[in-house]
Amino acid sequence: MPALQPRALAAQESVFARTSREAAARGAVNLGQGFPAAAPPAFLLDAARAAVGRHDQYTPPAGLPALREALGAEFGVDPADVLVTSGATEGLQTLALALYPPGGEVLTLEPAFDVYGPQAELAGARAVPVMLALDPQLGWRLDLDAVARAVTPRTCALLLNTPHNPTGLVFTPAEVEALVALARAHDLWIVSDEVYDELYFGPRPVSPRALAPERTFVVGSAGKRLEATGWRVGWVVCPPGLASSLAGVRQLASFCAPTPFQWAVVRALPVAREGGLYGALRDSYAARLDILAGGLEALGVTVFRPGGSYFLTAHRADWSAAALMDAGVAAIPVQAFCSQALNVPGVMRLAFCKSEADLALALERLATMDAARSTGS
Amino acid sequence: MPALQPRALAAQESVFARTSREAAARGAVNLGQGFPAAAPPAFLLDAARAAVGRHDQYTPPAGLPALREALGAEFGVDPADVLVTSGATEGLQTLALALYPPGGEVLTLEPAFDVYGPQAELAGARAVPVMLALDPQLGWRLDLDAVARAVTPRTCALLLNTPHNPTGLVFTPAEVEALVALARAHDLWIVSDEVYDELYFGPRPVSPRALAPERTFVVGSAGKRLEATGWRVGWVVCPPGLASSLAGVRQLASFCAPTPFQWAVVRALPVAREGGLYGALRDSYAARLDILAGGLEALGVTVFRPGGSYFLTAHRADWSAAALMDAGVAAIPVQAFCSQALNVPGVMRLAFCKSEADLALALERLATMDAARSTGS
Repeated sequence: MPALQPRALAAQESVFARTSREAAARGAVNLGQGFPAAAPPAFLLDAARAAVGRHDQYTPPAGLPALREALGAEFGVDPADVLVTSGATEGLQTLALALYPPGGEVLTLEPAFDVYGPQAELAGARAVPVMLALDPQLGWRLDLDAVARAVTPRTCALLLNTPHNPTGLVFTPAEVEALVALARAHDLWIVSDEVYDELYFGPRPVSPRALAPERTFVVGSAGKRLEATGWRVGWVVCPPGLASSLAGVRQLASFCAPTPFQWAVVRALPVAREGGLYGALRDSYAARLDILAGGLEALGVTVFRPGGSYFLTAHRADWSAAALMDAGVAAIPVQAFCSQALNVPGVMRLAFCKSEADLALALERLATMDAARSTGS
Repeated sequence: MPALQPRALAAQESVFARTSREAAARGAVNLGQGFPAAAPPAFLLDAARAAVGRHDQYTPPAGLPALREALGAEFGVDPADVLVTSGATEGLQTLALALYPPGGEVLTLEPAFDVYGPQAELAGARAVPVMLALDPQLGWRLDLDAVARAVTPRTCALLLNTPHNPTGLVFTPAEVEALVALARAHDLWIVSDEVYDELYFGPRPVSPRALAPERTFVVGSAGKRLEATGWRVGWVVCPPGLASSLAGVRQLASFCAPTPFQWAVVRALPVAREGGLYGALRDSYAARLDILAGGLEALGVTVFRPGGSYFLTAHRADWSAAALMDAGVAAIPVQAFCSQALNVPGVMRLAFCKSEADLALALERLATMDAARSTGS
């Protein structure tokens, strides 16, 4: 037999997929993968069921024109500058293939979402990770000097993510301004992964697009916004005039995003905005964040509260993914998001986009683990 | 601004997307793009509406386990050897990235579906097209000697397509045997695009997988089989042991196929098989093929009747895509599927997966075009 290519042999099942599989097999509460416990809102389900049977054939690869219109209105851009993708992951891959030259370097902020590096490699480029600074008591901080030092003549893009997964960091306006200035100074593209754009617990995140629309691509996700991660509708808001070239690359992937769900998102976007869905979700997630964070702190765990996203990070000296899984709680070690060793061991990412019952059960199991240990010692 | 990569600048809106757009703008009967006029069958719609609201979050990248089981049963393989993709196009791209080495050559049969070449280029390889022989009266024929002559030490794969788009050719068992022997002799992968596997009008197509399961990847499409091209559920049946590496590549694209439609296809596959859906569709499409082919022949057009697929090819000396569009009928010039000049000018691909009313209207408009010309001359 001929061989598979190294890029295929190197490709691994993601830590999220693996953890979800193991959690299901072992009956663990899954605080690993970031998908919500709740069903999508009823108006979205109604819109999808109505589209099924009426809109079932291909759309143009760039997206259903009505959805590009709706997203144009949402972001205040020309609909021609919006590209619809089969989820945010495909948007990121399309950008990697369209923007990163062979031999190019893409600055990423570690810990980083796991697809950034392999997607850069598919394009013949490579990710150059810059670590966020981690203080064992105070948590995560963007190290702007480290980002500036990592720029080389081969750097082609700055891959940002705010709110940031897995740390939950929301970059301050001053930080975004400094990152944009760096991109301008070195003529870099900015790829801004903003799938949690409506899920924040403090100040509203600032997009680099507000400061540098000419070089910023914003990647977004209807699945994250509308609680339907399996519907596979995402988007890329592009600098003026570039979406049609990206559509040519994107049609080689999944050709178009699922048609009935594109229609459902058309109907849902204005309803979500006007009906206050995003605010209601923020309130609901903030309450669950408090439950999980408060419960963990009561167990002597150091919690870094996020500015946004579905996740908190937390650590205790004796924690590991295996120990938590043995206790019946699935979580993702933050080390899995890093290419170099973290300076603080045992830091875990825990998703709080789960039911209050599941969060309570997870806390109970962690308390039981502690009780068993103190009895055993 | 930095530049887009050449692969993005070179990417064009597909001839299908462009033709559909122009057909809509000009009110032409769209016999261009291959999507069915009919709605998907009611049992499929019911299954999808039932899944919406119950199964809305991510599945594993390799696919919903229940769908891999259903496809394993359908094809008589281990479910672990089935990969679910967001449509067949994504399956083909995944295979390009996993199988084709930089500098590798992939033999394709021209005229060829338009994504094969650009996908090979994304992988750093290139498509080497071998023309099907075209006799102006008798139609298309596979030239096995030409395929054999095109093999070089850099050839890595044979990309087959049966039933073949756009010609409708179904390769004979002897032809498939010869192609498999060639692949064996030179240790080539076989990528077999079989999205029209259930849509044939003569002998049932033979898959090369039947003869060479160890080297054949079969790409299939629920959208084509079940009349829902916008649902984006496809699959790759892999040689034993290779699907998990492919899943690693595939999760970098759209992460997973749309969850509710994966569930709907689980429910629908056995119903379609046992309820005789594929046979009913064959009968229905055969009737529409007769209407279109008969009507064209009455207008002095030479028609090459297909052994399978949604399409016939046909020509008349004065035909061109522009002339037909002016007459109010959108069709795709077969030249658009070729990298070299066809030996017969004016050959068009016409889709007959449209309503009988649309086919009648198209024939009426073509007759009107002829009448206007003979009046004008």
